[in-house]
Amino acid sequence: MELDFDKAGGIIPAVAQDADTGEILMLAYVNEEAWKETLATGFAVYYSRSRKRLWKKGETSGNVQRIRRILVDCDRDSVVFVVDQSGPACHTGHRSCFFTEYKDNRDVEIAPVVVKPEEMYGK
Amino acid sequence: MELDFDKAGGIIPAVAQDADTGEILMLAYVNEEAWKETLATGFAVYYSRSRKRLWKKGETSGNVQRIRRILVDCDRDSVVFVVDQSGPACHTGHRSCFFTEYKDNRDVEIAPVVVKPEEMYGK
Repeated sequence: MELDFDKAGGIIPAVAQDADTGEILMLAYVNEEAWKETLATGFAVYYSRSRKRLWKKGETSGNVQRIRRILVDCDRDSVVFVVDQSGPACHTGHRSCFFTEYKDNRDVEIAPVVVKPEEMYGK
Repeated sequence: MELDFDKAGGIIPAVAQDADTGEILMLAYVNEEAWKETLATGFAVYYSRSRKRLWKKGETSGNVQRIRRILVDCDRDSVVFVVDQSGPACHTGHRSCFFTEYKDNRDVEIAPVVVKPEEMYGK
């Protein structure tokens, strides 16, 4: 068994981590097909729960994630993709989707927008 | 709204990351009650999907996670707990649950057991 897809309805979380800095860039999901596509192509491919289809990260924005290493956890029900991230990981234009710190019961934005969304997705 | 618990049946993934090294230690889940307990106590409290109850990380092993920072993602449906980890995070005695690299279609153990499980949980 490669991964335990059965525990949560066929999908497991995949955490993308920057290969150079260790920064956590985003969390998304893979089903078995996305997992196999990721292995076959060497680029992160996820399963979109809302759109119910595979999406190669960066297919629209160009901000692809080249896989450097893949780590599997002890229960085989979550993975880490250690990646070379092209451009921002977040659709907001922040480097990481985790650009908000929750502190003293409020949000604090801790990182800047590095590319404006309209430059990533067209106007 | 603090977090979007509705998207996946009341729970969201929480990634624990070592505050000093940036290493990803484990991935678990929080429901709203676990989230509130984490905020109230300053220690990571998760929701066990298998046992269907809250568990304070380290309640048996002593390997607690003191919260240093909490990061929330752009969709508010996953969080990162940046923690001071006491002892190993993994029940196997590895520092991180992600001690396995999946490479060339096989598992490679990339980190040692730092504390034997029988020393953490009694014999």
